[in-house]
Amino acid sequence: MTFLGQPHHDPSELYVSDPHPHRGDTVELRVRVPAGQVAAVHLRHMHDGEAAFVAAAPTDGPGPDEWWAARVLVDNLTLQYRWFLVMADGGTAWLNGSGVHRRDVTDAADFRLITTAAPAWVADAVVYQVFPDRFARSARADERPTPEWAHGARWDEPLRTYDQQQHRQIYGGDLDGIIERLDHIASLGATVLYLTPAFPADTNHRYNASTFDRIDDLLGGDDAMRRLIDACHARGIRVMGDFTANHTGATHEWFLAAQNDGNAPERDFYYWTDEYPGYACWLGFKSLPKLNHASPGLTERLYGEDGVIRRWLRFGLDGWRIDVANMTGRLGGIDLNREVAARTRAAVDAEGDRWLVAEHFYDLHHDVDGSTWHGAMNYAAFSRPVWGWLERPSTNAEDAHFSVTRLLPSIDGPAMIETMAEFMAQVPWAVTTASFNIVGSHDTGRIRWRVGDEGRAIAALGLAHTLPGVPMVYYGDEIGLVGETGEYGRRPFPWQAEETWATGTLQAVRELGALRRDSHALRHGGLRWIGATEDAVAFVRESRQGSALVVAAREATGQKTVPTALLPGIESGRLALGSGIRVEGNQVVMEAERGGIAVWVW
Amino acid sequence: MTFLGQPHHDPSELYVSDPHPHRGDTVELRVRVPAGQVAAVHLRHMHDGEAAFVAAAPTDGPGPDEWWAARVLVDNLTLQYRWFLVMADGGTAWLNGSGVHRRDVTDAADFRLITTAAPAWVADAVVYQVFPDRFARSARADERPTPEWAHGARWDEPLRTYDQQQHRQIYGGDLDGIIERLDHIASLGATVLYLTPAFPADTNHRYNASTFDRIDDLLGGDDAMRRLIDACHARGIRVMGDFTANHTGATHEWFLAAQNDGNAPERDFYYWTDEYPGYACWLGFKSLPKLNHASPGLTERLYGEDGVIRRWLRFGLDGWRIDVANMTGRLGGIDLNREVAARTRAAVDAEGDRWLVAEHFYDLHHDVDGSTWHGAMNYAAFSRPVWGWLERPSTNAEDAHFSVTRLLPSIDGPAMIETMAEFMAQVPWAVTTASFNIVGSHDTGRIRWRVGDEGRAIAALGLAHTLPGVPMVYYGDEIGLVGETGEYGRRPFPWQAEETWATGTLQAVRELGALRRDSHALRHGGLRWIGATEDAVAFVRESRQGSALVVAAREATGQKTVPTALLPGIESGRLALGSGIRVEGNQVVMEAERGGIAVWVW
Repeated sequence: MTFLGQPHHDPSELYVSDPHPHRGDTVELRVRVPAGQVAAVHLRHMHDGEAAFVAAAPTDGPGPDEWWAARVLVDNLTLQYRWFLVMADGGTAWLNGSGVHRRDVTDAADFRLITTAAPAWVADAVVYQVFPDRFARSARADERPTPEWAHGARWDEPLRTYDQQQHRQIYGGDLDGIIERLDHIASLGATVLYLTPAFPADTNHRYNASTFDRIDDLLGGDDAMRRLIDACHARGIRVMGDFTANHTGATHEWFLAAQNDGNAPERDFYYWTDEYPGYACWLGFKSLPKLNHASPGLTERLYGEDGVIRRWLRFGLDGWRIDVANMTGRLGGIDLNREVAARTRAAVDAEGDRWLVAEHFYDLHHDVDGSTWHGAMNYAAFSRPVWGWLERPSTNAEDAHFSVTRLLPSIDGPAMIETMAEFMAQVPWAVTTASFNIVGSHDTGRIRWRVGDEGRAIAALGLAHTLPGVPMVYYGDEIGLVGETGEYGRRPFPWQAEETWATGTLQAVRELGALRRDSHALRHGGLRWIGATEDAVAFVRESRQGSALVVAAREATGQKTVPTALLPGIESGRLALGSGIRVEGNQVVMEAERGGIAVWVW
Repeated sequence: MTFLGQPHHDPSELYVSDPHPHRGDTVELRVRVPAGQVAAVHLRHMHDGEAAFVAAAPTDGPGPDEWWAARVLVDNLTLQYRWFLVMADGGTAWLNGSGVHRRDVTDAADFRLITTAAPAWVADAVVYQVFPDRFARSARADERPTPEWAHGARWDEPLRTYDQQQHRQIYGGDLDGIIERLDHIASLGATVLYLTPAFPADTNHRYNASTFDRIDDLLGGDDAMRRLIDACHARGIRVMGDFTANHTGATHEWFLAAQNDGNAPERDFYYWTDEYPGYACWLGFKSLPKLNHASPGLTERLYGEDGVIRRWLRFGLDGWRIDVANMTGRLGGIDLNREVAARTRAAVDAEGDRWLVAEHFYDLHHDVDGSTWHGAMNYAAFSRPVWGWLERPSTNAEDAHFSVTRLLPSIDGPAMIETMAEFMAQVPWAVTTASFNIVGSHDTGRIRWRVGDEGRAIAALGLAHTLPGVPMVYYGDEIGLVGETGEYGRRPFPWQAEETWATGTLQAVRELGALRRDSHALRHGGLRWIGATEDAVAFVRESRQGSALVVAAREATGQKTVPTALLPGIESGRLALGSGIRVEGNQVVMEAERGGIAVWVW
């Protein structure tokens, strides 16, 4: 079985003359159809909310497929479209992002070409996420006193799991520590360093900021951030910050001013209530008062020219990750989420060429339309299906802290690709490709712990590097750190105990980073699923400059073949990573000896 | 095969303690599951954009199914939810509006319980659509001179099809004519009279109004509208107007003022351009200049306290149908559609208990969220699948005028119910049930012409009356008027030629109207599909006060059976309409001798 015998289109460069058009451009859209299947092809696109039709004409294209093309003016902010196929058998069908349908379908899986895509550099990015207290500690840290609120810990000390004080355990990782480890980060092929919050707070995670005006002295302060950004930029690595617009800490200077003075300009930055604790807060935590985005004063402080977002971008950040973006601006009968997202986006755009990524644990499709986030931490479309496929049921315990990891169906290979295909079909291609492919973060159990063995961990990291989207590596996943929840995964990077590192994983992540850098197809290609068995999935990425065939497996698998004719030029290629793909005569043979990932490029 | 052996929930009264809750209410949600299938049930709902989980507990409910219930606070404007089933086999599954899924699914088919539903009376409505120039002509019409721009026609004269003057052919139907025919309208069970536009214009369709300040004298003017509304209200029939907020006529007083004077207050009501004809217009027709909803002055004239919308509601209209609602406020890089819809809704709500229905030819789900239209003319979810199933391919010619009738896949019974189920799953239940189920309108070919015979026409009208939604009967469809496009279907109602009427259709529509009035299940019930064959579909509507089993057929069909145990109480019921449903022992037997509809109630 293979899906390669299906008509196909996606909004990547192989099928769109300019995948990132401007309003007013005319683009050529192309669709491939196995020879002899169709008699005519039309493009249906929505123009000002009304369907319009353009007849497609046969054109040239690679392989044995027939290619059809239609030209259309991009007049709205988003070009929403699908294909209408008049089949050779006399029937008719729609082709949208979820495939071929011989009946009407909703617009949910229409293709969407946005005029407001992320900066071009995002396509080439590999992100490395660092939780600053736990990644690396410079000698400067020894000079800093442990704050009153904190429990100091030695770097090789275990996590504090025996009381409710884990958020106050400080290992002393700092920004200068990161600078000392840039060789390691670069060795993974990472081009973007994403730091969880660096503003002062009385926790190690710092999602409860007490100010947005300076970098925490515990991390080295503004000067250290200056040094880190400069050191990164000097090596071609960009730096992304982490900002919480949903709430502040209860120790935030704005909150204290508002609480102490009913006439303070900050008073309307929060929601004051008659019920304990007297204000709206995030998920009921009184330490996290929720921000009221109906306040013009708050809007100015956050999104104005000298507001938090723009000021730190001018300081040198190359983008922002926005914490709990899915909840921001939403409270009871109030839903300002779209407005907040659009304001954030406008502020980011005003500083030019920066990247805006939302934390979002759920289906993105209602929250991204081109005017809001460039992309998201793609838990729903990537992480959950990967986990559901790779987790060993015995380790699938309930995570008490974050629902994203809860109620996770255990699935096989076909169900994983169906899930990914359904989610991907409902958001613009340019949003998926500007989103993080995540196998774990500071909010989830560690991938190695989840899946139980190195082969599966490599399969997960391999999928993150080869599916559309930007791979994100959470510090330590590349050496097989474990931990059953987000909390318990935030271990100090064991620089001092290299003998504990999962060297096969580290090697694989380095090879994946290099392969992604070298493969235009992995960075710019479309996606065609080839097929799946219970234990393996296969797909091909195809761009104008090359192709990559990827096979990911969770166990040893039997042999599957696909005719080389369906993947034109494949016989001229080579195995670039892993094992288990070869060309024999006119067949591509795929089999896996163990869990892992294999990539053939041509 | 039957879907009755599946877990089921829909947001109707059988499964929701209050299907039209207010914010702040706690509702009980119930789900039915065939005995022995599940071990536990959880409700997942989105709260402020974040998933929250509530454990469900077993409860009582009708039939052999197990019922589970969960209570949840309706804290947001819409309660978005789905069920998580822990299956008896150890697996897990989501249950959403598209069924049971053993993998993650997007939010597209999550259930949505809105706090902003249409007025309660809408559930009981049957709508009769009248195109005023063509329905009935009173003696007063003889006293009115034919306007300069018009071609007068005798009532029994054929439509003018031989030149481009069809929009100027005036038969002289008027509002007093409608009053004279209220017995006929009431005989169909209609409770709402929906009139296409009645403002003055220089066409017979009047979608190019020259003012919104008065009713066209050709129809009898304001006085006649007063008489009509009073006469309708006296019989318990409500009256709905038709308003175009997308454009006016080029003869509109606002447009003329704006065109003649660059400083006129109306100047910014339109989009002025450098290209011919000098302003933006609807689909390029220069007679229809597009309104610019960024204009505060326009907003006031349309939606203010003395604006068009509110003024005519106070005059006595019970609601508005909004023309080309899907395009309104959308032009190139501008998309104010949501704002326009919300303003219209706020204006309608301000006058209390009125109904707001959008013309919308496409998938509604992006355009309705509770804050906008109550419902729509449901072409996408109802009309197109019905047409696709019932049309005879030989008559499926391309309609040159309206894309809604173009590129229509020809489908079988299973594909029709799959299509309906997919579309319905993606909009709130309370929106579907406040939308028009349409088999034809002034914009489409006549149903009798489309489907070719009376049995199929009755099947179509029968589905309109028995599926969730408000049946709309387009004047003349009840007597089998024909016409291959919207244009050519606008024939004068042949009061003078009763011998041409399709009496079987008329009888069926009257019975359907009466049945709907008497059946609580048809007005308030949920929907469970039972199954479909190529030529027949079956479903059941179930409310707290009764049930109705419906079988619609396009041809004679073979016999299908369902165990009575799956439809508890059915043996106590009776055949209320049509033929071909009976209970034999412990089986419900369904078969059709010809195209049509059968309904069994209990």
